[in-house]
Amino acid sequence: MKKIKSLGYDVVFEDNLNELQSFLIDHDYSQLLILVDRNTNDHCLPVLQASIPDIVDYDIIEVDPGEENKNIDFCIGVWKTMLDFGADRKALMLNLGGGVVTDMGGFAAATYKRGIDFINVPTTLLSQVDASVGGKTGIDLDNVKNIIGTFSQPQAVFISTAFLKTLDDRQIRSGFAEIIKHGLIQDKALYQKCKSLELPVVPNEIVFESVQIKNNVITIDPKEKGLRKILNFGHTIGHAIEGYSLENDQSPLLHGEAIAIGMICEAYLSFKLNNLEEAELEEIVQYLSSVYPKYQFDQSIYPILLGLMRNDKKNENNQLGFSLLRSIGDCDFNKYVEEADIIESLDYYRNLNS
Amino acid sequence: MKKIKSLGYDVVFEDNLNELQSFLIDHDYSQLLILVDRNTNDHCLPVLQASIPDIVDYDIIEVDPGEENKNIDFCIGVWKTMLDFGADRKALMLNLGGGVVTDMGGFAAATYKRGIDFINVPTTLLSQVDASVGGKTGIDLDNVKNIIGTFSQPQAVFISTAFLKTLDDRQIRSGFAEIIKHGLIQDKALYQKCKSLELPVVPNEIVFESVQIKNNVITIDPKEKGLRKILNFGHTIGHAIEGYSLENDQSPLLHGEAIAIGMICEAYLSFKLNNLEEAELEEIVQYLSSVYPKYQFDQSIYPILLGLMRNDKKNENNQLGFSLLRSIGDCDFNKYVEEADIIESLDYYRNLNS
Repeated sequence: MKKIKSLGYDVVFEDNLNELQSFLIDHDYSQLLILVDRNTNDHCLPVLQASIPDIVDYDIIEVDPGEENKNIDFCIGVWKTMLDFGADRKALMLNLGGGVVTDMGGFAAATYKRGIDFINVPTTLLSQVDASVGGKTGIDLDNVKNIIGTFSQPQAVFISTAFLKTLDDRQIRSGFAEIIKHGLIQDKALYQKCKSLELPVVPNEIVFESVQIKNNVITIDPKEKGLRKILNFGHTIGHAIEGYSLENDQSPLLHGEAIAIGMICEAYLSFKLNNLEEAELEEIVQYLSSVYPKYQFDQSIYPILLGLMRNDKKNENNQLGFSLLRSIGDCDFNKYVEEADIIESLDYYRNLNS
Repeated sequence: MKKIKSLGYDVVFEDNLNELQSFLIDHDYSQLLILVDRNTNDHCLPVLQASIPDIVDYDIIEVDPGEENKNIDFCIGVWKTMLDFGADRKALMLNLGGGVVTDMGGFAAATYKRGIDFINVPTTLLSQVDASVGGKTGIDLDNVKNIIGTFSQPQAVFISTAFLKTLDDRQIRSGFAEIIKHGLIQDKALYQKCKSLELPVVPNEIVFESVQIKNNVITIDPKEKGLRKILNFGHTIGHAIEGYSLENDQSPLLHGEAIAIGMICEAYLSFKLNNLEEAELEEIVQYLSSVYPKYQFDQSIYPILLGLMRNDKKNENNQLGFSLLRSIGDCDFNKYVEEADIIESLDYYRNLNS
């Protein structure tokens, strides 16, 4: 069992979840609510139940899976179900799922009766390496990602790689994009380790190291006043593409797939505007292209993408704020980029050999 | 100009709002959003504009007035308008209105892009003495009052009694109920001063003293773990009656009118269960009955009222938690009351001479 100290709480890495049962027994919560989606209800809840055999009294709240459902309508449904279950201020919410469940469950808990405690048991690789630390909760509105939310820390996070066995290859690769990102922005050695892996197997050690990197950043800058913005590398353009795809594709891109595209475009911007060496740009592009399939789109969607970028939370004073690499393992933030350059980076991506 | 130090911010009492203009000039906000309802747009915005002549660049967001509109649908409208205006994380929200505007505007600001700054300029007596300090933001869901919200402090609050001239007698009396409450729970002298007043005139000094009492309580216990609960005197039953009235009456009770009923019922419970002297009960009932009209309802609505009370945020472990007087000027909290006694207190109110 390993632990990382985050902002006032522990992230516990333990495949058998013994510590989770102890946590639930030791705390005097009036009620336990478990938030799941249909997938985690079927595949992860049995694993959880087997791990906490002494905890038998709880209520289940189920939402539909998928980023397209991480919206205010589903959040209202969660609040109403909490009311129906008579949840009081001393209830505990356990979010069992990927980022959709932990983001929305965290927001619902943080705003229900002005805030009840919650814990996260992330079940996807993406949520284990990304949503597990940092205290960001949120939901989407009009396809603008996470535009409504709070900074609210869970009481604890429990990470078991046992849940990763429930994921398909595509979901593993999606989560893996955030691990690659952590390497690119802070740790060249981790990036090199990523390149040596045979996906979809991701060793526990890599998950742990990845969370450590993110945790170091967010404990220095919890409210994203400065340094924390480097975690947004790939996300300004990536979020816009994800939002577009959610709205327009029958089988939308997964978060990490969109972020991989964003990282290619923003690596190009890093080369053009922030002194990233061309050789490193080419190496990043080659590697990401080997892990993620090419996404087809044409120039006609650029205005939509730019519109989505303008609503990005990272913008200030009407400027599009990017985080750009200086080299592999080193990233700058608050880089303001002209629309013409963004368009050039989208052209660059489209013109890559698929 | 007088100031009260609250939780990290100042409550400024100044009829000409000079300090507000200085605040806006001194702070480097990217944008100013002013939230109003139709009434404050017509009657209070001109007063505000005249007070801050050097501030000319802002956007107005308007919502419908009335507690029945302090709900998630209107909040979504506010969020979308903020997006449409391109508000970034360094924007400032100025809430100009009564409790509906300050509660909802505070919540919208506290959750937009994970939180932007906001200031309150309360324009009703109720919001000046109640919502101005304490950091409670919130909206209603399914007629359960303030069930969704956060504890979020404004950057400042500016109180000008110039706005009270825009109110009718009924609104003044509604706000006055909270001043009476502050006397009943903490300050017998203030209660006696209330009794000597000729409504609807409320001297500045009384507003100031009332905010001081509330501020003393909430700075000791910001998150309502204990002492702060005394501010809920009259509110467990009062909120239920208010929720019922909102749903069922063509011209619903105002907040303070419902709280006055709640205070009579809960004074009765204080007499029956918490050693309040019968003479003090009678004096309270006589005074409140002289200020507020009798509300007619019959036993058939008791189940609805009890259902609303069960969803009250103050409940823990399935018990209805009340704050009950020990004497005028002294209040206890965490008093758990049986439903039979609540019913008796409702009967007591109904049987008063109208």
